[in-house]
Amino acid sequence: MLTELFTPSVQHALDVVGIFFFAISGALLAVRKNFDVFGIAVLAEVTALGGGIFRDVIIGAVPPAAFTDLGYFLTPLFAAGLVFFLHPHVERIQVGVNVFDAAGLGLFAVSGTTKAYDYGLGLTASVALGLATAVGGGVLRDVLANEVPSLLRWDRDLYAVPALVGASMVGLCIQFDVLNGWSTGFAVVTGFVLRLLAMRFHWRAPRAYNRRSASGEEGAAAT
Amino acid sequence: MLTELFTPSVQHALDVVGIFFFAISGALLAVRKNFDVFGIAVLAEVTALGGGIFRDVIIGAVPPAAFTDLGYFLTPLFAAGLVFFLHPHVERIQVGVNVFDAAGLGLFAVSGTTKAYDYGLGLTASVALGLATAVGGGVLRDVLANEVPSLLRWDRDLYAVPALVGASMVGLCIQFDVLNGWSTGFAVVTGFVLRLLAMRFHWRAPRAYNRRSASGEEGAAAT
Amino acid sequence: MLTELFTPSVQHALDVVGIFFFAISGALLAVRKNFDVFGIAVLAEVTALGGGIFRDVIIGAVPPAAFTDLGYFLTPLFAAGLVFFLHPHVERIQVGVNVFDAAGLGLFAVSGTTKAYDYGLGLTASVALGLATAVGGGVLRDVLANEVPSLLRWDRDLYAVPALVGASMVGLCIQFDVLNGWSTGFAVVTGFVLRLLAMRFHWRAPRAYNRRSASGEEGAAAT
Repeated sequence: MLTELFTPSVQHALDVVGIFFFAISGALLAVRKNFDVFGIAVLAEVTALGGGIFRDVIIGAVPPAAFTDLGYFLTPLFAAGLVFFLHPHVERIQVGVNVFDAAGLGLFAVSGTTKAYDYGLGLTASVALGLATAVGGGVLRDVLANEVPSLLRWDRDLYAVPALVGASMVGLCIQFDVLNGWSTGFAVVTGFVLRLLAMRFHWRAPRAYNRRSASGEEGAAAT
Repeated sequence: MLTELFTPSVQHALDVVGIFFFAISGALLAVRKNFDVFGIAVLAEVTALGGGIFRDVIIGAVPPAAFTDLGYFLTPLFAAGLVFFLHPHVERIQVGVNVFDAAGLGLFAVSGTTKAYDYGLGLTASVALGLATAVGGGVLRDVLANEVPSLLRWDRDLYAVPALVGASMVGLCIQFDVLNGWSTGFAVVTGFVLRLLAMRFHWRAPRAYNRRSASGEEGAAAT
Repeated sequence: MLTELFTPSVQHALDVVGIFFFAISGALLAVRKNFDVFGIAVLAEVTALGGGIFRDVIIGAVPPAAFTDLGYFLTPLFAAGLVFFLHPHVERIQVGVNVFDAAGLGLFAVSGTTKAYDYGLGLTASVALGLATAVGGGVLRDVLANEVPSLLRWDRDLYAVPALVGASMVGLCIQFDVLNGWSTGFAVVTGFVLRLLAMRFHWRAPRAYNRRSASGEEGAAAT
């Protein structure tokens, strides 16, 4: 079992930490959208657990871990409560929240990839599902809040690429049979650091060719 | 089998009634959004069956009941037809529709909880899934109509709480081994009546702390 | 096995063609919404594979074919790359794209219906799931792009009806035991041609009764 690279209790603790910070990001968006306390709780749950539930439904691991592990379910409620009572303070430490969200991103990308591979998916599909695990909750959060998912927008710092790099490193480690606690941890940290750098230096991804140059725009207009 | 508390035919009849009134609410929103006849039918189906399909996929009861029971599938089409031809009259009896939607809410919360527990979920997870069964169709309806789900908005009367109370009562009855036809019916009626009271007296849920007082807003602005 | 009416390699080739053109339509919408290169890839994947993934999750065929067949997964990435570099040219041949999208629509409606029936669903449910397979990806595409699904809007040419006709023809063929390669191909072509005609002559579906006549509107206003 690949997922036993970490001891179960360490894996579980890391999962709960990732869930907690994803839930904070969902709850903060709910406050900004002026939702009530139940809207805050729902958006926290969806953001934190959505990616994992999608992964588990796809690989046939039902009921999903989010519904069988009480800790997974209660953590977002705790995060929602914190935001509900303390949100000016939580906003003030937005940088801190972003750092922990980046940690969750790296962790979920890696654990999603290993769990998908454990359930028999191919390497490429496992990496894709690891990416979906990491970013899925945020996409659901934005869809429910009736906004264009920030994952898709060109004016946001890179989010998918760090997760994709982390997941791909796990895929390569599996391919070359060098997956162990150290290489897994290295993949998590790589995804985490890349996301931090993307936020620090505002890395953006390019848009389609003719939208980047005036001549391209003219070319499009002339068609 | 918990779900055999009601005789199957009574349970089935109640389900169809709940589906019918949820479908009416979906079809009416489709008319207001100016959708065509197929949009009306799709929104009626999604609103009526979405919560149950989500529950069945999560607990692994595939194919979902919505795809194996013809009555479940055809009822929303019938509701869509009614709205298509009669919608000024249906709108006129909006109060009546709301009452039946409240009945569907109470019923789905309770039946969703018992079905989830039957499939082996824990008590807390069963209550959460019962709540999701009751409100899931309405959330999908609003997402497809490109609106912020009314479940999340603070300026709408309480919707999740009555469902949560009904589902929690079932959870407590299971915990203390007193679940029977009477206690189940009492949970349905409680959810139903709470929703009616919430509409009658415009009960709202609070928003996050600093949004409720001017001083709180100033505190946020000063950060 | 109904799905072996076509030889597997022919079936697979047709699926890949349908996936390719659905992916083009998703990638083009992403460019119009000004998404970056990852947004283009995500929207291409979701549009091309969303309907099939939904079908496979509903019938319990997990992991879905989209995650077990590398060709299904890589085709949308290839389409996204084409659009990324060539999109003014792709837009110029919009008519061609629409024609192939129509072909994908007919094909997916038919193959979705047969696969659902193969997995034990009833005839009506199989036809409904075939329709969902054909139109599901497009609905997800529009939801992620934060637009009202064009499937639901009255001011768009008929899209669901051609798919429904194709799926229903397969259902009737199964009912009367005359499903073979010829009748299946005929159903695909019928759906395809109907969609072409709907685009050519701007066929629209009616809206609810009182929205079509001034007297109806007045009747509604008077209530």
